[in-house]
Amino acid sequence: MSVRIWTGSGSPYSWRVLLALRFKGIPYEEQVLSFSARDHKAPDYLARNPRGKVPTLECEGAVFYESLGILAFLEARFPDPPLLGRAPVESGRIWQRLAEIDNYLAPVMHAFFRPIFFGNPAGQEHAIQQAAGVIHLELGGYEALLDQAPWITGDAPSAADLALYPMLRSILRAAARPSVADLELALLPIAESYPRVAAWMGRVEALPGFAATVPPHWQAADDG
Amino acid sequence: MSVRIWTGSGSPYSWRVLLALRFKGIPYEEQVLSFSARDHKAPDYLARNPRGKVPTLECEGAVFYESLGILAFLEARFPDPPLLGRAPVESGRIWQRLAEIDNYLAPVMHAFFRPIFFGNPAGQEHAIQQAAGVIHLELGGYEALLDQAPWITGDAPSAADLALYPMLRSILRAAARPSVADLELALLPIAESYPRVAAWMGRVEALPGFAATVPPHWQAADDG
Repeated sequence: MSVRIWTGSGSPYSWRVLLALRFKGIPYEEQVLSFSARDHKAPDYLARNPRGKVPTLECEGAVFYESLGILAFLEARFPDPPLLGRAPVESGRIWQRLAEIDNYLAPVMHAFFRPIFFGNPAGQEHAIQQAAGVIHLELGGYEALLDQAPWITGDAPSAADLALYPMLRSILRAAARPSVADLELALLPIAESYPRVAAWMGRVEALPGFAATVPPHWQAADDG
Repeated sequence: MSVRIWTGSGSPYSWRVLLALRFKGIPYEEQVLSFSARDHKAPDYLARNPRGKVPTLECEGAVFYESLGILAFLEARFPDPPLLGRAPVESGRIWQRLAEIDNYLAPVMHAFFRPIFFGNPAGQEHAIQQAAGVIHLELGGYEALLDQAPWITGDAPSAADLALYPMLRSILRAAARPSVADLELALLPIAESYPRVAAWMGRVEALPGFAATVPPHWQAADDG
């Protein structure tokens, strides 16, 4: 058994799969693609993943892309410890939360950090604030869920926790940029705005193997 | 065991779940919500599904929303016949295809049919044609897949087939509108533009119980 994974540093979709690999204790060989060098559009990469996105995973000759496909494969191939539930109700709830993360939080995460990281926040204050408003709605929902249980879907960590965490980190990292300091986004510090979410982030960070999954260029002390 | 499902007529996400229920032979009671009457935003509905979307499914006291969550629950609770694969490689591939359908085809489906059904196509010709271009790329990918096997993920129908079909029907129904007849979208007739996709659509339509899932107002002879 040998697992290879192609990631992009800082990609929340890559990060969730790295967290799953660590959670399950699966050894892997990681190749970090450089977006600026267009590694993800190189012919040898496109031969594995014609969409030219990250992550891509190869195991025993089979290649998978799309993080949800990769998570489903890993769960079936390496069932212990489980990340996608055992009982039907649990499994349905975890996939429901995964779908909600990708259908509602992911689009607004992109809308929020695109102007901050890749554009010029000046002149886009309204769009950034509008996105932050939707992010607050989503965070309010997670704060309420985490009032019921220590993890998003109950008493144990699941794929929903590992998928949500990297997206929140991306959002908070963008919110910490000096260029948006005057916008009164009210996201930071997260321990004050959403204390249960903040405590849950601490629990994710305490999972074995977590540190090895953090994007190298995010290790700087000023990251949110 | 009793299954209740709340749907919206013509919603491709509702339709995929109805197809799964029929495929598995699970009896269900369907309540069709009226979007124009705002049934999906009524308090009793929001109590079940706070996002106010369709579909929502209730079974043995548990409530699920987001079609992928519902499909995962149904598969775990009613495993036969399978729709999400048994072997790890099969399961991973099916979830990969589901993610691709929702991440790449769904956004362009909305971009394509929104101006045709809910707006005024006049003045939006460029946006419609641009969306059609992306749809052609996706259809080309499915045409190639269906050259390898009779179903999207292999020799048997899977959730990927049941999720893709309603989206394609929605797209083709929009493409058949007289208001876009002059745009040379080159999507219709599908049997000429994508013969393998057309043949596959016929196979989906031949699945037992299919007819009962077709949106009532789509039954008219002029629908694509």
